[in-house]
Amino acid sequence: MRLSQYFLPVLKENPKEAQIASHRLMLRAGMIQQSSAGIYSWLPLGLRVLNRIEQIVREEQDRAGALEIKMATIQAAELWQESGRYDDYGLEMLRIKDRHDRDMLYGPTNEEVVTDIARTHLRSYKNLPLNLYHIQWKFRDEVRPRFGVMRGREFLMKDAYSFDIDKESARHAYNRMFVAYLKTFARMGLTAIPMVADTGPIGGDMSHEFIILADTGESGVFFDKKWLDTDMVTDIDYSDDLQPVVDSFTSIYAKTDEKHDPDNCDIAPSDLLERRGIEVGHIFYFGTKYSEAMSATVQGADGKPTELHMGSYGIGVSRLVGGIIEASHDEDGIIWPESVAPFDVAVINLKPGDEAADSLCEALYEKGMAAGRDMLLDDSNDSPGAKMKTISLIGVPWQIIVGPRGLKNDLVEVKHRASGKTVEMSPDAALQLIETSGAISID
Amino acid sequence: MRLSQYFLPVLKENPKEAQIASHRLMLRAGMIQQSSAGIYSWLPLGLRVLNRIEQIVREEQDRAGALEIKMATIQAAELWQESGRYDDYGLEMLRIKDRHDRDMLYGPTNEEVVTDIARTHLRSYKNLPLNLYHIQWKFRDEVRPRFGVMRGREFLMKDAYSFDIDKESARHAYNRMFVAYLKTFARMGLTAIPMVADTGPIGGDMSHEFIILADTGESGVFFDKKWLDTDMVTDIDYSDDLQPVVDSFTSIYAKTDEKHDPDNCDIAPSDLLERRGIEVGHIFYFGTKYSEAMSATVQGADGKPTELHMGSYGIGVSRLVGGIIEASHDEDGIIWPESVAPFDVAVINLKPGDEAADSLCEALYEKGMAAGRDMLLDDSNDSPGAKMKTISLIGVPWQIIVGPRGLKNDLVEVKHRASGKTVEMSPDAALQLIETSGAISID
Repeated sequence: MRLSQYFLPVLKENPKEAQIASHRLMLRAGMIQQSSAGIYSWLPLGLRVLNRIEQIVREEQDRAGALEIKMATIQAAELWQESGRYDDYGLEMLRIKDRHDRDMLYGPTNEEVVTDIARTHLRSYKNLPLNLYHIQWKFRDEVRPRFGVMRGREFLMKDAYSFDIDKESARHAYNRMFVAYLKTFARMGLTAIPMVADTGPIGGDMSHEFIILADTGESGVFFDKKWLDTDMVTDIDYSDDLQPVVDSFTSIYAKTDEKHDPDNCDIAPSDLLERRGIEVGHIFYFGTKYSEAMSATVQGADGKPTELHMGSYGIGVSRLVGGIIEASHDEDGIIWPESVAPFDVAVINLKPGDEAADSLCEALYEKGMAAGRDMLLDDSNDSPGAKMKTISLIGVPWQIIVGPRGLKNDLVEVKHRASGKTVEMSPDAALQLIETSGAISID
Repeated sequence: MRLSQYFLPVLKENPKEAQIASHRLMLRAGMIQQSSAGIYSWLPLGLRVLNRIEQIVREEQDRAGALEIKMATIQAAELWQESGRYDDYGLEMLRIKDRHDRDMLYGPTNEEVVTDIARTHLRSYKNLPLNLYHIQWKFRDEVRPRFGVMRGREFLMKDAYSFDIDKESARHAYNRMFVAYLKTFARMGLTAIPMVADTGPIGGDMSHEFIILADTGESGVFFDKKWLDTDMVTDIDYSDDLQPVVDSFTSIYAKTDEKHDPDNCDIAPSDLLERRGIEVGHIFYFGTKYSEAMSATVQGADGKPTELHMGSYGIGVSRLVGGIIEASHDEDGIIWPESVAPFDVAVINLKPGDEAADSLCEALYEKGMAAGRDMLLDDSNDSPGAKMKTISLIGVPWQIIVGPRGLKNDLVEVKHRASGKTVEMSPDAALQLIETSGAISID
């Protein structure tokens, strides 16, 4: 993308309404614009990051054998009356009457709709196991929306729903999602600790929240300090037995404050850390809670109608954009992990109009695009200082700075945003860096 | 995808509620499930097609220089009160009160929100031209939702909005979208005729609907029979002057019934056709209607505040799924154009458990996937007849049928869904067909 043809409305001043780093930086970097309390438009730069995160989530769900569907945002109240949650859900549910005065709602979650799909089409235990997921906008009418996309009202969530014939098989489904979540967050460069959690309005008897640590987090969390040195990357194959992997993680103490009980915590006080955290994922096994209420049965191996065992598995896709920024920024701006960066490489032309600078920048840009890299070419007429500030603010991982002074000696500057390291090299060497498939490195 | 691990709930019987072919076939092929009147869940097969159509729309918008954003589904009523449309819009607008009793609505379209983005960030004519688009769910509370996704209440739409400094420049923006639409629909194998149309509640003085012909269409249309022989594929570059291209199309008579006036139609009655059509796209130039009402100005070249000239450009993404089926099906089921098919090739194992059949099917499946083809492997235990019926129903363009009888002579059957042609060939030849990049052909 050429910056001269892009829409990147960066702000020079810190917006007053933003209390936390991610909110402030997303506004300053022109990623989002508030359209109403807790409701945001995603501008081009923000949408690029959102899409990359969504795609990582999708790939890991697919890899774990879940099938993608798309349920609507507007749901009929009847289904929620069947499950018994319509009255329970409270004011966070956005209730709507349509033109025929029928009670509708904007889905805050989809257990009811997906259970309706399952009971319509699943006939036999032979149709199982099944895991259906979708990535769709949700609405929760927060009383005080704040912190930008971290606690907005309309937000993008991935929610998956597993259907199994019994508890044992449902545990496999739960473990698959547990491992898929470890893989998903690790790919985004995050340490997301699975913590024993309350099941809340979803119900059920087994639940983990995946939580990243941040001072601005909404939850208090307690965990063994061992977590800080634990490698979250897991290479296990889904056809292996996942229980030992899950056990190896869950054996390290980690609980949210609703679940932590100082009198029943068996690790040494000196090993126990108390911090704040941001929930980025939440998985539940809730057995037959919905299938009983909504009569979702299949024929079991014994020929008898058997209620489906279910779990649900959420990831806050839009919230992750803010969560990653909270985990990765400095005073100059955002530092995107390469896996979710809006652009891989920025080419900064310090002097548009200078023939040598223009033609080298064009060549780097075009060749980088041809090599499959997402390139940003700053061909604007801003001052060199303003350009450097903007590119650091928006957090592009690699910057190639081209100016007439360096070019006299056949040199460009290559800057790595995360380490701050800058190296001078020939344009050819820079091009080779860009074209290298896999991670670029200047070490 | 292996069918044994997929969720493809096909129906043997024609569902009673479906009056038109696309609705009937989408239900029978397990593409969608109604969750409430005019509101559908997209099941895995349906979502695949929806995603492919969305991606074609996106690519052609990007190519035309539009920038993707994502506006929220829920909007504040204030913006619509500013534009004056809040009271005008009528019962089709889904009106909502949030927990603080604020008036909100589910966006049926986004002129107001995008004009708010423009007035917040655009300062100068130097920021122009700009075209922002998004692909997002909309809601229109149709009084009688019907025809499945063709006339649903919640639907996926691409809407783009152009901002220019004057009418002349806005006409370029309009022409770019006009050409982008020709390219978009041609890629989907559709003949979508641009027709002079009423501007309706959007307003403005220049408008074309893109309409595909179908007996079940909701609009009456009048057009020169020349259209039926017009090649809709256009190879023009966006840096060329687009006016002659647009003129060459718009010079051929085509008007919707609101605009057609028999007394002012200068073509011979024998050349005039009257048909029914389905609107799949609609483009508008409406000048300063919204920028005046909402004070969206930029500094002009003369230093004075100048109101933005705007246009808007819609494509019914979810409606297109139905539209394409209306245009392309037979009594056996759907016939997907290759560009939007949910799978490129189906490998049908007539006898799972037969060692030779199993291993060849696996090899074809794996090699096809490795070659980048979307493969469906029917490894289910259905009868051969049921398998053939299902694959024809869901409309996979190419079928490779593997059975023990053919394999004795080292032969498989390759069937082309659209032409109905069947050819016997060696497994190697079939594999070569699959691996061929670009269009497969058995001619």
